[in-house]
Amino acid sequence: MANDDTKEPLLLGSQETGAQKAKRHLNQRRFLRSRSAPDIDHAPLVTNDSESIPLSESIFGILHPSLKKVAIYLMVYLGVGAIIFYLVRNQIKGLKTHRFLDAIYFTIVTMTTVGYGDLVPDSDLTKILACAFVFSGMALMGIILSKAADYLVEKQEVLLVKAMHMHEKVGPSEILKELEMNKTRYKFFLVFSLLLILIIVGTIFLVTVEKLEIIDAFYCVCSTITTLGYGDKSFSTEAGRIFAVFWILTGTICLAQFFLYMAELNTESRQKALVHWVLTRKTTNFDLEAADLDHDGVVGAAEFVIYKLKEMGKISQEDISLVMKEFEQLDIDQSGTLSVSDITLAQSS
Amino acid sequence: MANDDTKEPLLLGSQETGAQKAKRHLNQRRFLRSRSAPDIDHAPLVTNDSESIPLSESIFGILHPSLKKVAIYLMVYLGVGAIIFYLVRNQIKGLKTHRFLDAIYFTIVTMTTVGYGDLVPDSDLTKILACAFVFSGMALMGIILSKAADYLVEKQEVLLVKAMHMHEKVGPSEILKELEMNKTRYKFFLVFSLLLILIIVGTIFLVTVEKLEIIDAFYCVCSTITTLGYGDKSFSTEAGRIFAVFWILTGTICLAQFFLYMAELNTESRQKALVHWVLTRKTTNFDLEAADLDHDGVVGAAEFVIYKLKEMGKISQEDISLVMKEFEQLDIDQSGTLSVSDITLAQSS
Repeated sequence: MANDDTKEPLLLGSQETGAQKAKRHLNQRRFLRSRSAPDIDHAPLVTNDSESIPLSESIFGILHPSLKKVAIYLMVYLGVGAIIFYLVRNQIKGLKTHRFLDAIYFTIVTMTTVGYGDLVPDSDLTKILACAFVFSGMALMGIILSKAADYLVEKQEVLLVKAMHMHEKVGPSEILKELEMNKTRYKFFLVFSLLLILIIVGTIFLVTVEKLEIIDAFYCVCSTITTLGYGDKSFSTEAGRIFAVFWILTGTICLAQFFLYMAELNTESRQKALVHWVLTRKTTNFDLEAADLDHDGVVGAAEFVIYKLKEMGKISQEDISLVMKEFEQLDIDQSGTLSVSDITLAQSS
Repeated sequence: MANDDTKEPLLLGSQETGAQKAKRHLNQRRFLRSRSAPDIDHAPLVTNDSESIPLSESIFGILHPSLKKVAIYLMVYLGVGAIIFYLVRNQIKGLKTHRFLDAIYFTIVTMTTVGYGDLVPDSDLTKILACAFVFSGMALMGIILSKAADYLVEKQEVLLVKAMHMHEKVGPSEILKELEMNKTRYKFFLVFSLLLILIIVGTIFLVTVEKLEIIDAFYCVCSTITTLGYGDKSFSTEAGRIFAVFWILTGTICLAQFFLYMAELNTESRQKALVHWVLTRKTTNFDLEAADLDHDGVVGAAEFVIYKLKEMGKISQEDISLVMKEFEQLDIDQSGTLSVSDITLAQSS
């Protein structure tokens, strides 16, 4: 699963790679960028993006590359699932509505691990197929969680900040700055609002179309978005299953994203507390000695930055040693600093 | 949920805070530590640990504090769940065995979101209770995933490396070094092995005790560890449900951990590729200019380290600006460097 060049964190929405993080940061902060910031946007990144696929003319053309990729995966998964379970429909027992609709509904219920049990495999073949689809479905859900959801949320954040400051006059740069400061909090509120809407819409739908009692409808909603899926209440009508195909997918992803952002908020507040402590504690002579990387008796600005960032846990001794090794190679005249002459020497050798 | 001082990432096993990461790194590498490493072990970390709870004499005394906390949460959750669902047992319908056992089995099936549906709520009260338990259960599963599992795996890793090098003579420091280099890979293999064992044990158990066909047993195992839980096959005997209480919990956590480590391996390999690119690309005059933090025309070792780490995406311009601000405050004589005299001046003022 996902063993091509698109390798990505599966379950961790926020565990993006350094390259992505740097890219995102730079994209958001281009207007703030100091002249010491590396020009990573133009760096030949090691990973290929799917932009080489000539799909830009198609319906996916307007989407972000990573979102496009996820959309393609999802469609392939659902398409293959629907066709396969349509072909073996006689080996699936339970409450049936429309043939093809049931196949895609069964694929969604399996992929999201909701597993109501209103439709269950009834042969060895379909049981093995269900096993294969649930494992690959979990991986796909992870990819969706880590890529698409984050991207969509980022798109909507600007609207949210705008809406929250409707009475004030704020320019786009103020909005970006505000977003930057409280990014995770906005993401959290956005996903929380979306979750509430999905819960309300789902409950109303189950009451009106599936004719459930209101408590039963809410219970079915909770049982679905958490992927619990006892299955005593589920979508039993044709209209219900059409709705379910879209609603189950968004609902389960939305709740998972909600928990992820809650965790992120948590981590962030701990991280902020540590940063605050590192920056406000008294600097002692011992600190100076420890921070003096080149042992010249004084601590330069850059040495101080490295020392403090290491204390914050943002970088490790390994990271530093690795770069120091390259520095020593580049410092051909062994002056302890890199100058234009070192570069010239390196180019001529 | 978890709204006390133990606030922790919920779903992200690897999203530890900087403090934890720094602490872990330092613990593992104490023998490697250079004199420039900050003495974070002795720093008054801002978060309180539960060590202040006088439980060290009890059965949990031998456990790691964070593991102890998770164990307590889990026991409270299961205890409360078992008691509540025991009290409302007449409002739960389905296949019943032993009263109290069914209550705890129902709690586990709900908490892990397996939701077979062999036991289902049969009143408004129990439906609302199930909703409450599945949401808090998801949060608890996240906490378990992020803390206990990681800790247990780390404990077992040393044994794994030892076993893999049985024919060679390796000392404890070589083992630690090897572990450090391939940490994620070892974690992944360990969890994968554990998962295989759990799948095999579960299948054998279902065949022998629950008298299922082998395919059905395997299908029930897959359906359970993925939390799919269609419910056509589940644990229906008293012995089966005793086994299920332990096996479902470990199985679901193990599979989730497996996916997390797979994602981590992925992220790591992308990160390594970026680091490699950053370290091997040609340094140009443009780089020198960009890296020259103090604008003195040459690039010192520390400036070079900062420039490269920023290029790797490990630190951001914000991180640097934040520390630079503190540096400027500390540099009382405005010499551009911190020396003992700055510290003395700061203390006297």
